[in-house]
Amino acid sequence: MSDKRPPITRHYNPYGGKDSGAVSRRADSEESGVIAGRNAVIEALRAGVPLDKVYIQKSDEPTPALGHIASAAREAGAVVVDADKRKLDYMSGHAAHQGVVALVSQGAYVSVADIVARAREKNEPALIVVCDEISDPHNLGAIIRTAEAAGAHGVIIPKRRSASLTPIVAKTSAGAVFHIPTARVPNLSAAMRELRELGVWIYGTAADGGKNLWLTDFTGDCAVVVGSEGEGLGRLVREGCDFIVSIPMNGAISSLNASVSASLVLYEAVRQRRG
Amino acid sequence: MSDKRPPITRHYNPYGGKDSGAVSRRADSEESGVIAGRNAVIEALRAGVPLDKVYIQKSDEPTPALGHIASAAREAGAVVVDADKRKLDYMSGHAAHQGVVALVSQGAYVSVADIVARAREKNEPALIVVCDEISDPHNLGAIIRTAEAAGAHGVIIPKRRSASLTPIVAKTSAGAVFHIPTARVPNLSAAMRELRELGVWIYGTAADGGKNLWLTDFTGDCAVVVGSEGEGLGRLVREGCDFIVSIPMNGAISSLNASVSASLVLYEAVRQRRG
Repeated sequence: MSDKRPPITRHYNPYGGKDSGAVSRRADSEESGVIAGRNAVIEALRAGVPLDKVYIQKSDEPTPALGHIASAAREAGAVVVDADKRKLDYMSGHAAHQGVVALVSQGAYVSVADIVARAREKNEPALIVVCDEISDPHNLGAIIRTAEAAGAHGVIIPKRRSASLTPIVAKTSAGAVFHIPTARVPNLSAAMRELRELGVWIYGTAADGGKNLWLTDFTGDCAVVVGSEGEGLGRLVREGCDFIVSIPMNGAISSLNASVSASLVLYEAVRQRRG
Repeated sequence: MSDKRPPITRHYNPYGGKDSGAVSRRADSEESGVIAGRNAVIEALRAGVPLDKVYIQKSDEPTPALGHIASAAREAGAVVVDADKRKLDYMSGHAAHQGVVALVSQGAYVSVADIVARAREKNEPALIVVCDEISDPHNLGAIIRTAEAAGAHGVIIPKRRSASLTPIVAKTSAGAVFHIPTARVPNLSAAMRELRELGVWIYGTAADGGKNLWLTDFTGDCAVVVGSEGEGLGRLVREGCDFIVSIPMNGAISSLNASVSASLVLYEAVRQRRG
């Protein structure tokens, strides 16, 4: 399998720091991410997220905290611009920006192969989350948060009918979006085929009809596909799975929140891998 | 232990239907719950939630769906009242009420002993969730949803500094609030002592420093205490726990969402109990 993966450098940096070398990166021309709020921007700078521009709110009394962010951003190579409150409100979609909004550089998304390569470098069986049309940004953020905490190697989201990495997603993820590589792909089925060619098994989650979670082996290279809450997995996506797993439901309610389902499957993989 | 629990009838109904007999119920004089929206009210009626009053929006063209809800509510013993849209908006806190808002009867909350008795009746080791100051109604709803799906016997929430069973909680719980008994207690430490006297072990969850989740035995009577996300468990509450458990964190993010933590612990108990 190792002959199929692209050449990568020793120290993999998903956000394209100096070490990223030959890692290919899918440029994303549709939207660049917006990060709003002091802690979110500081967290992004610390994690080495490449920022194009940082907008700081104009003020007659300069705030030390904003000044600190501005100099850290300049050091990291971002252009720092003064802006009035109305512009920041507009850019952040009226989120609580606390006087600072940053634009993430294009190309912060990685490729599917990059994510698998990251697992190979760490000598770990791959653990990847594939989000099938998770349109609620809070759900997407919650999934990314747990994926990062569980030690997953990356998240794959589709370009259409999915939330992208917006400020709400960044906030709900508790900053995890800055620590786990994300691939944003035009075609989820094609991404799943690519994963399979790289030797990764695809596990779909379904409310029922699947194999019991605890009787399923997650010790090999795994990608866990999480469906949208209302619809579950799309037909094509479901057909592209090697296994369908279900979480036992013991009450009157017939389904779990998408991020809870994802958490249970991811942590079952972690449990099994610890032996 | 069986001599300590209160007398109960054979068919336990946490919401006080005909079968509830001698089950004590803690009357709650502070707030009665409000349920807004057609599906939510229908779900509540189906689950036998006792409704005091159902407010239907006045209209020149009567809607068959609202007419159906009105007659079902009358059959269930509720008073049905016409109201104008402004009143419904106000009552529901401007939620999407779709022309119907219901007031839950006082006393829909149960006691701590009722919850333990429910487990005894089912001949199951108790599985109970204790929420320590979960103030975000979305988090509380998500916890209740997973608790119900996992087959837990009840949820305990404090009267102060906690969300109560509001329409948002009901909605986020996907209706689970109508299927799992909830006790709302003035003092969480006292409730934990009561649980312990009834033979239930108390497991606190902490971001770190606790025993590994997977090395902890959950096969006996369990109550899982979930802390608020920012603060974790309060000092007194933490001291009242028999065990502190932690979920392994493998990434840069140091904590999980409260509802995700609760889900992982509850489902680990379910997994162990299945053998």
